[in-house]
Amino acid sequence: MNQAVYFGPLLAPRYPGQVTQSIPSSLAEIPAAVESALDNYFASRHDAIAGISPVTEQVALVLKDFTLNGGKRIRPTFAWLGWAGTKGLTLKDAAAQPEALSVLRTVSSLEFLQACALIHDDIIDSSDTRRGQPTVHRRFSVAHAERSWLGHGETYGRSVAILVGDLALSWADDMFMEGGLSPAPLQRAWEAWREMRTEVVCGQILDITAEAQGDSSVMSAQRVNRYKTAAYTVERPLHIGAAIAGADPSTIAALRAFGRAIGVAFQLRDDQLGVFGDPEVTGKPSGDDLREGKRTVLVALALEHSDARGRRELEAGLGTPLAADEVARLRTIIEESGASKRVEERIDALTAEALELLKDAHISEEVAQSLERMALISTQRRK
Amino acid sequence: MNQAVYFGPLLAPRYPGQVTQSIPSSLAEIPAAVESALDNYFASRHDAIAGISPVTEQVALVLKDFTLNGGKRIRPTFAWLGWAGTKGLTLKDAAAQPEALSVLRTVSSLEFLQACALIHDDIIDSSDTRRGQPTVHRRFSVAHAERSWLGHGETYGRSVAILVGDLALSWADDMFMEGGLSPAPLQRAWEAWREMRTEVVCGQILDITAEAQGDSSVMSAQRVNRYKTAAYTVERPLHIGAAIAGADPSTIAALRAFGRAIGVAFQLRDDQLGVFGDPEVTGKPSGDDLREGKRTVLVALALEHSDARGRRELEAGLGTPLAADEVARLRTIIEESGASKRVEERIDALTAEALELLKDAHISEEVAQSLERMALISTQRRK
Repeated sequence: MNQAVYFGPLLAPRYPGQVTQSIPSSLAEIPAAVESALDNYFASRHDAIAGISPVTEQVALVLKDFTLNGGKRIRPTFAWLGWAGTKGLTLKDAAAQPEALSVLRTVSSLEFLQACALIHDDIIDSSDTRRGQPTVHRRFSVAHAERSWLGHGETYGRSVAILVGDLALSWADDMFMEGGLSPAPLQRAWEAWREMRTEVVCGQILDITAEAQGDSSVMSAQRVNRYKTAAYTVERPLHIGAAIAGADPSTIAALRAFGRAIGVAFQLRDDQLGVFGDPEVTGKPSGDDLREGKRTVLVALALEHSDARGRRELEAGLGTPLAADEVARLRTIIEESGASKRVEERIDALTAEALELLKDAHISEEVAQSLERMALISTQRRK
Repeated sequence: MNQAVYFGPLLAPRYPGQVTQSIPSSLAEIPAAVESALDNYFASRHDAIAGISPVTEQVALVLKDFTLNGGKRIRPTFAWLGWAGTKGLTLKDAAAQPEALSVLRTVSSLEFLQACALIHDDIIDSSDTRRGQPTVHRRFSVAHAERSWLGHGETYGRSVAILVGDLALSWADDMFMEGGLSPAPLQRAWEAWREMRTEVVCGQILDITAEAQGDSSVMSAQRVNRYKTAAYTVERPLHIGAAIAGADPSTIAALRAFGRAIGVAFQLRDDQLGVFGDPEVTGKPSGDDLREGKRTVLVALALEHSDARGRRELEAGLGTPLAADEVARLRTIIEESGASKRVEERIDALTAEALELLKDAHISEEVAQSLERMALISTQRRK
């Protein structure tokens, strides 16, 4: 049996190459290459979905627009680095491997999973904007209103967005399976992929349940971070890449531990930005996390370390439609409790720990440097 | 490379066999065998999900309860028949095939897809009951209320149910991939599986969009039936089974055409039951489809063939919270328009057409008879 053709026959007619497919030979080139893989994947499915009806064609275009505009491609980047690094290759040499295109397509499927997670998350949080644009459910409720359709526009928008998320989740698996990997690496990568999909859903469930329970403990917030963000953003993408390469168990363990630490630090940065971020840069309204009542580690620490009055004010304000001056007041309470300083210290400690762990992984020098850089980008970013 | 072990290593530790796994050797035994495969699949994932948190363990148990209670297992049944029939086997001989267990597991994954479709559909339709039990979103909103949690119970229930549906969709792919098929049949089956997942989501999108547009045309309702029900309930399950067996293209084409006809007839029966069904038998409130304003072929025909007054009454009542006597009035209008008679005629014609198409398929005599029986069960059922 010719391993290389296992998913080959499925693949050929589905990549008409409507954009030039690039293979990244440097860290900076990865996001654009991922986007070209996604672009080609959408092109490959266009005719079938347009054949069903003009409505579904439009819906697929909304998904395409949402998926291709504005992401940082951080998950495929970690997966690509996990693959190239554990193969012991420079990024330039990785690009020249015969399987490079298959690996790129496979890891780009992480962006479909991310699209599903964001679309459904925005419904759950009733968010109006994402990446500075209307969220998917908002786009469809606005379309409903503009056309004076029957029923409630909000309900329609939410319903279509649930289904668009389902489509993205299905296409995530499709693209992952059809990337062109041969059976052995595909099977190894599947193990990490399967765990990750369940972990991210479970992390989300824990998140909203903690919010409903009013569970403001640091422990609860940390567990959410572990599953909702760390596993899914860094640990498993690195695992997938390393599994494709057939890396040794100790290297996989080191990369996963690095990923957990950086992933948690990534989420802590997110928490800081959700309260203190510049809306011009983040694309989200200032203080959104406070209005949503998110039980982040930042908030948990603030509640733990505020005086009784601050705690009362914070508890009373969280999850309510705060005005700008009220947001400012809660920010001051959080700052004065020392929570944001503590979070910064944790971010620094986790980053240092992660970089130390990286030394145990047998990976190429260039990828080690790239992972260091990604660690800093993930934890020092402004959006 | 040993083909048989391709997904074998993944599989072994995940089927601890907490219930006895039966292999069906007759049509009547298929549903229970599917349920034992699902039961074992849930058992295989229990420890990992319970390890995340007691909350996620509970959520998985709700999904298990929902998936295992009350379904007719019609999709796995068609897939099993598609496999056994195109292998030219009696059902008894099929059960003795070395790959029988793998096939059973693989086709049972259709029930996870169905679980996702139902859970998300119930959110979209704001349905309170399903199979005589509270819907998944209702279960979580009730749990929220009982525990006096924070925020809106309805929002919490809906949010968790979106995520439980996502979990079911992920596990559908997991179970499909890990059933134990060797690469060649798995790849063939994957083609049908992938198309089906997109078709059912597109059918749903068309359905709610037609409702929003107030599109009451017969054509629109027929397109929804084609994708939302026929492809997903009969055509693709048969296709998956036949693809696993490596059936010849003409047999696959005949089975798919049979499936499209029976699938559409199945939906027409559903439409009749949604208006005229006995709530004691269907487990759904009487006239639910009218309250939801579903644009079925039945309703489309009634609008087309009623007099002006009947049409006005029907249009005005559809999608409103009708009282029992108003439901009865709309039923009379639909009956008097001749629409339900026309729908019965269509069901009969489609069934006859389907049975004729079946003659072109090269399948075992016993499976041909079983498919005939399934065709009658699907189109003559009372729930």
